[in-house]
Amino acid sequence: MNKIKKICYEPIGYICTEHKDPNQVPVQPIYAKGFKGYVKLRPEFVAGLEHLEDFSHIFLIVHMHLKKEKKLKVVPFFHNKEKGIFATRSPARPNPIGLSLVRLEKIEGNKIWVSDLDLVDGTPVLDIKPFTKQLDSRQNTRDGWVDQIDPEEAKRKGRRQIK
Amino acid sequence: MNKIKKICYEPIGYICTEHKDPNQVPVQPIYAKGFKGYVKLRPEFVAGLEHLEDFSHIFLIVHMHLKKEKKLKVVPFFHNKEKGIFATRSPARPNPIGLSLVRLEKIEGNKIWVSDLDLVDGTPVLDIKPFTKQLDSRQNTRDGWVDQIDPEEAKRKGRRQIK
Repeated sequence: MNKIKKICYEPIGYICTEHKDPNQVPVQPIYAKGFKGYVKLRPEFVAGLEHLEDFSHIFLIVHMHLKKEKKLKVVPFFHNKEKGIFATRSPARPNPIGLSLVRLEKIEGNKIWVSDLDLVDGTPVLDIKPFTKQLDSRQNTRDGWVDQIDPEEAKRKGRRQIK
Repeated sequence: MNKIKKICYEPIGYICTEHKDPNQVPVQPIYAKGFKGYVKLRPEFVAGLEHLEDFSHIFLIVHMHLKKEKKLKVVPFFHNKEKGIFATRSPARPNPIGLSLVRLEKIEGNKIWVSDLDLVDGTPVLDIKPFTKQLDSRQNTRDGWVDQIDPEEAKRKGRRQIK
């Protein structure tokens, strides 16, 4: 099989939020409740948004552009023991792709307003997909070290500076 | 702001399944129940898998390499009316990134065995992330045109040739 060795994308847009400092951005959408921002979509893609507003939640697939360091083992933000990078959501991964499941508020032209946003201003957006509970939710799962997290502590820690 | 214009990744591995023909691969993991395959991870990344086996479900973020055509409006596989590309999961998107939520069966060296696999053999894998119900499930959602799908028809259609 002739394997593809390199894959290049152009961003379809960029994240606009008040958070310029990655150390102040909340970690994970569920700890970013109510925090708003928008995707500024490249104008040539606006026709691709038709019917998206009928969905309450969307996936943003982004390039975590600020993370330069790559590691195979990390101590996760919400835990205290080292794990393999693929068992975490850390941005220090071989390909720093981020997956954020956010709430869609409204679409105004090329601005896709969302809340529960855990991304820093200027983050390049690679793709937007509708979330549906039918296709994308699972209930009977084993969640590894994430099951050991204290929810209250994670909420406080994940939310960071946001009131 | 100095915006990034081009983003390049190298695959961390490739999908290995018996499905060589994209027209025979089931559509969406929930219609691919029990269908198995593995990610053949590049050996230099195996250390990054530590603790991943503690999770029952993982996200595969892939490059849908066979789709050359890009469209801003498509008729979704499970529907009969045209939608904006970002309101669908069609591969004909500006950046043909796929998101598959699959069941993790076991890890043997650099082979990550999964089931509910809806990807064609040879698909380049860009990232692997753990799924957790706490972070990644949502129940009270509005699911746009996907709510209008007849579940039985979608199951039959999505499963395709698989028995």
